[in-house]
Amino acid sequence: MQGTSFIAGGRAKESGGTVHAVNPATGEVLAPEFCEASTDDVHRACEAAWVAFQSYRLLPDARRATFLRAIAGQIESRQEAVVQRGQQETGLPEARLKGELARTCNQLGLFASLLEEGSWPQPRIEHGDPDRKPIPKPDLRSIKRPIGPVAVFCASNFPLAFSVAGGDTASALAAGCPVVVKAHHAHLGVAAIVADAITAAVAECDMPPGVFSMLFGSGRTIGQALVRHPRIKAVGFTGSRAGGRTLMDIAAARPEPIPVYAEMSSVNPIVILPGALGERGESIAKGLHGSVTLGVGQFCTNPGLVFLPAGAAAEKFAATLARLMEDTPTCPMLHSGIRSAYSEGIQQRERSGNVKKLATSDGDLGAGRSHAGAVLFQTTADAYLQDEQLAAEIFGPATLLITYEDDKQLDQLVDSLEGQLTATVHATADDLQNRQRLLAALELTAGRLVFNGYPTGVEVNHAIVHGGPYPATSDGRTTSVGEMAMYRFTRAVAWQDCPDDQLPDALKESNPLGIRRQVDGQWQ
Amino acid sequence: MQGTSFIAGGRAKESGGTVHAVNPATGEVLAPEFCEASTDDVHRACEAAWVAFQSYRLLPDARRATFLRAIAGQIESRQEAVVQRGQQETGLPEARLKGELARTCNQLGLFASLLEEGSWPQPRIEHGDPDRKPIPKPDLRSIKRPIGPVAVFCASNFPLAFSVAGGDTASALAAGCPVVVKAHHAHLGVAAIVADAITAAVAECDMPPGVFSMLFGSGRTIGQALVRHPRIKAVGFTGSRAGGRTLMDIAAARPEPIPVYAEMSSVNPIVILPGALGERGESIAKGLHGSVTLGVGQFCTNPGLVFLPAGAAAEKFAATLARLMEDTPTCPMLHSGIRSAYSEGIQQRERSGNVKKLATSDGDLGAGRSHAGAVLFQTTADAYLQDEQLAAEIFGPATLLITYEDDKQLDQLVDSLEGQLTATVHATADDLQNRQRLLAALELTAGRLVFNGYPTGVEVNHAIVHGGPYPATSDGRTTSVGEMAMYRFTRAVAWQDCPDDQLPDALKESNPLGIRRQVDGQWQ
Repeated sequence: MQGTSFIAGGRAKESGGTVHAVNPATGEVLAPEFCEASTDDVHRACEAAWVAFQSYRLLPDARRATFLRAIAGQIESRQEAVVQRGQQETGLPEARLKGELARTCNQLGLFASLLEEGSWPQPRIEHGDPDRKPIPKPDLRSIKRPIGPVAVFCASNFPLAFSVAGGDTASALAAGCPVVVKAHHAHLGVAAIVADAITAAVAECDMPPGVFSMLFGSGRTIGQALVRHPRIKAVGFTGSRAGGRTLMDIAAARPEPIPVYAEMSSVNPIVILPGALGERGESIAKGLHGSVTLGVGQFCTNPGLVFLPAGAAAEKFAATLARLMEDTPTCPMLHSGIRSAYSEGIQQRERSGNVKKLATSDGDLGAGRSHAGAVLFQTTADAYLQDEQLAAEIFGPATLLITYEDDKQLDQLVDSLEGQLTATVHATADDLQNRQRLLAALELTAGRLVFNGYPTGVEVNHAIVHGGPYPATSDGRTTSVGEMAMYRFTRAVAWQDCPDDQLPDALKESNPLGIRRQVDGQWQ
Repeated sequence: MQGTSFIAGGRAKESGGTVHAVNPATGEVLAPEFCEASTDDVHRACEAAWVAFQSYRLLPDARRATFLRAIAGQIESRQEAVVQRGQQETGLPEARLKGELARTCNQLGLFASLLEEGSWPQPRIEHGDPDRKPIPKPDLRSIKRPIGPVAVFCASNFPLAFSVAGGDTASALAAGCPVVVKAHHAHLGVAAIVADAITAAVAECDMPPGVFSMLFGSGRTIGQALVRHPRIKAVGFTGSRAGGRTLMDIAAARPEPIPVYAEMSSVNPIVILPGALGERGESIAKGLHGSVTLGVGQFCTNPGLVFLPAGAAAEKFAATLARLMEDTPTCPMLHSGIRSAYSEGIQQRERSGNVKKLATSDGDLGAGRSHAGAVLFQTTADAYLQDEQLAAEIFGPATLLITYEDDKQLDQLVDSLEGQLTATVHATADDLQNRQRLLAALELTAGRLVFNGYPTGVEVNHAIVHGGPYPATSDGRTTSVGEMAMYRFTRAVAWQDCPDDQLPDALKESNPLGIRRQVDGQWQ
């Protein structure tokens, strides 16, 4: 394994500082050393992406579909290496890595299917009328077109599905945009294997080499240089609120501001209504425990706040959940930095006079100083509403129970929420009678409303929304998962009175692609 | 006519400074005085919009359609007053104002039709599967929902179609978002009449009063306070690049950044290819003259740059166009400030050593110091490419001819362009053979490509794109005109495993609205 950046089909020269991956479970330093990209490498990757864009954006959709499927194939053929290296670098179990690899390839396949079907650019045709008075009506036709090279930042918590060939890359490449990826320091080796797979697919499908590059280096230097580069036209990011906001600010201050799609922080509130708590409190406690501790709590949809009605049922629920949390085995988090942040979050909450710690299995850090256990806190709505620190995300397997006295207090809790990826309700049919206000208020806070379930586990499909109002994401109008993610990297372009032979195929009068189009206001 | 701001069905108290409209043709100061809104007025309007949003966003589409049609009706019933006051305030002729009023009402009608048809929120349903392995598949359903109260800034150059009840307001109200309008100082009286019409429609349709407010005052104080207000969730603006960028920067720096849809500056390049110039140079010169001088050049789609092949045909073309420009009568611009900026632009260009002034009818400012005539400049591609000032917009009836020597130079010209609303090509079928590179490069610069026509005159329909890469607009992914404008004010929300009776009607299994939906990946 060679430790230099991937630039447009070639590799960067060795230069600058080096970084290496660490096994979070053991603390072992993993070979090889990876060379940080230089600012010249950033420039070369972005210019190559711009050159590639000129041909890649005009390729038939079928060619791009083949390319996406080839990437999936190349990744699958490297599954053993990915899973082995992934376990060393991230401490994630084999089954999770295999599942995430399958998900990553399925995601590439979803976009390939959309391209093969062909209607995704939403062609709209409005025929002209030369006899219209007082002036003739022109012929107008529009479709969605790619916006240009995209900078993609890998996520710490998904070495595959939100990293080198993850959702941002897949949707950008599908839309017709080259990508320049910034690898994450927590899984450099996995990044290199996947970048090698994409590079092989570029060659296999005879794509312009600049369609894919990947840089190693720090977010502060290489990442920011990437976002500032004039050839970059959009940014995809999954990570911390501070990191995402920094990129948003840099992008907004460019001479030409560009969109940033940052998926940042979410505490994913769970609202338990009285009927549901009474009927199946124990089963909700078990389900919640599974959701909070899944993947050592390192999911953006991890539920960090639970609103439940005060009383005997809540006490029983809390006791059940506390027992489950106490019994949760410690596991390595993705790296020692995430583990330190988790400890700090827990300690800060402990210092607050407003919460009780009901349970913890947190303790031994392990040889890699990265192991973490589960922690359960409890407080009252009154205390919660007076301490805004309690609404902050603790990234890891911890959650906070908040007991409310009545519907009015529940409304206050919900109205106080910042933007979220998800909001969940546990309710019986009776609970939901005359609770329109509650559901309407929850809708304002979140991108996805979950009923009688748990927010972790994000489906990749046509209807999914994985987005939400700020600060859950930078741009609540979009989703980073599913079919609609592609539209983040497009803009509409119209052709007026264009000769038929010069139109994109999707807009030609004879509909040679046989796709679904809007014609004179009617979809057909 | 009363001169105070409109706040949620009532009127603001008299306070602060006053402003008044001026007849640009005569300089006459027009009664009444208008009171500038206070920051407390801004706050009251925004809070009322937030309250209104809670019910307005959940109304059936049909109710909102009725409301939009009622606004159109109320405006139509005030046509005489609007047109009379409009002529006094803007110097625009009666026919233009009547046409613009009709366009404004048609625009409201277009969005009403979309709401009546009902499929606009793009419902997507993906059925669950309890038997899926390894975990059950949830039921997921999503639609577009409104994002919240919108601040709308009126445009100087469209007192109706891009002002109080213009495209931004119509599309925001259609999407389910209340609006708070900032009136433009150039047409305060028209703004008051239209605000009165909307207020009457709010009462007529029993809408929540906060769904509409309108503030008088300066952009620097009231406008900026509006964009900073936490209840405002998006901004619509049509105006200068400096003004738009200021709002973009303010919105991006908010604790909760919000989208700004600013339509700013565009020089709308026209490319004339050799065959077309030879075959119909005279007719193109006439058409171009009409487009440059339409509405005293005060359109955002006004063509400010014309690329044409050097040679005898170009000289003949320039001479024809020069004669037409010389003969153009002077007319009042919208206000003396726009007129001064036009003079400054012309003088700066004259001072440049790189251009020749071929023709002018500019001279007498008139009693209102607002009259302007046409000006024609010419330069070469070499000179143009060395002086980036020549690519700047001069808002008014002026244009610049740039002669190119060959295709390579034409490519350089096109590659040098900033983002544009439109780009136009005059070409024969022969001209377009083997000119894919040119068309592909033009596509990158613009939102709308016009063939053998002129960019002024923007259709309001299903396929139109009135947007373009920065700095033409703040957000090239969107259009401010036509059906797609509505989506600027929406975000997707998903419901997971939601009981059918709690779903929005658009997503209920029985499809009670009978609308077009995507079901398990198929639009039906």
